Amino acid sequence: MRQRNKPWAKDKLNEYPQYVIASPQEHKGNWDTVFDQKQPLHIEIGTGKGRFITGMAKANPHINYIGIELADSVIVSALDRIIEEEIPNVKLMNVNANDLEEFFAKGDVDRVYLNFSDPWPKSRHAKRRLTYKSFLQIYENILVDQGEIHFKTDNQGLFEYSLTSFSEYGMLLTYVSLDLHKSDYEGNIMTEYEEKFSNKGSRIYRCEVRYQ
Amino acid sequence: MRQRNKPWAKDKLNEYPQYVIASPQEHKGNWDTVFDQKQPLHIEIGTGKGRFITGMAKANPHINYIGIELADSVIVSALDRIIEEEIPNVKLMNVNANDLEEFFAKGDVDRVYLNFSDPWPKSRHAKRRLTYKSFLQIYENILVDQGEIHFKTDNQGLFEYSLTSFSEYGMLLTYVSLDLHKSDYEGNIMTEYEEKFSNKGSRIYRCEVRYQ
Repeated sequence: MRQRNKPWAKDKLNEYPQYVIASPQEHKGNWDTVFDQKQPLHIEIGTGKGRFITGMAKANPHINYIGIELADSVIVSALDRIIEEEIPNVKLMNVNANDLEEFFAKGDVDRVYLNFSDPWPKSRHAKRRLTYKSFLQIYENILVDQGEIHFKTDNQGLFEYSLTSFSEYGMLLTYVSLDLHKSDYEGNIMTEYEEKFSNKGSRIYRCEVRYQ
Repeated sequence: MRQRNKPWAKDKLNEYPQYVIASPQEHKGNWDTVFDQKQPLHIEIGTGKGRFITGMAKANPHINYIGIELADSVIVSALDRIIEEEIPNVKLMNVNANDLEEFFAKGDVDRVYLNFSDPWPKSRHAKRRLTYKSFLQIYENILVDQGEIHFKTDNQGLFEYSLTSFSEYGMLLTYVSLDLHKSDYEGNIMTEYEEKFSNKGSRIYRCEVRYQ
């Protein structure tokens, strides 16, 4: 995502510790206490401006959500949404996906969402894709047993790669749509990116996979 | 495939026992003796008019092929190709895919091709799809260990279904293309159907899966 430099972003994130988790390592193994309600925890990795995660949180009040985004000048827009709408069951974390095991213990997370992740199309950058096996290992280490990843993208190459990466890791593919917006899937919450590219005619690919 | 009724087809198939295997159950466990060369055996289930299987046989003389097709008035066109081109490493079988275990022992077959299989789009007909679990069981029972299925189709619904069916059966997805004719896959041999529908702008989906 193109980022405008916002030198004030970090300060603003720090001003809202009720929404932006300041020291996530302190909650490892004990995330229930961070939210008002003790209920399942779903996280989105690469949450961008937060349209998806806030939409999900509003649609599913019985689930807790954390949107994770490394770019502070992007996640600050997600913070604006949460402040404005006062959504109680969603928080943000301004951290790197590589470090998730520092913040979550095995079983802390019930589901991982990956939406429109950077495709890193060059082979030599495959290790940076969020569906590369080292990331699948990280997600497994923080998810419940038989935890799920729900993944969508408009990038054909990334989707092809990811299907084989999930399979080679030993995961079960339980759902696949090769044209989400023309499918009978209900309850889709669009990301900013998804709406823009779908309007331009791009197909959206989506799958659900489960650890075994 | 639309079929013209050809009452003479069965007689013509019987006239060419060197190309159309008359009593396949007699070769169970012993297919090497049917071909000139002792070499790997690949079969196509639903071979239609035989453009794919004869094209593969010409391109890969070090592999033996059998094209399997239930409709005698269709497979007779495949026979015409083989007669005309005198291809030594391809044979035909006019039998039902449900009965393959009568003709092949475990390990007789090195690879199965499924091309543009009937999608049977209604849920109540799912059991008839050639990628339904009962068929995957049949293929496993005739293939070598870690045998492969190579599958292509223009039918989005069948491809989506098949990816999950392969996965739920415990197979490994090693290759997937969501737009074969725009991919860098080399050596594609088109079926009659594939050329027709690709020319109309349909995407061709292709995958390779392996038993584990």
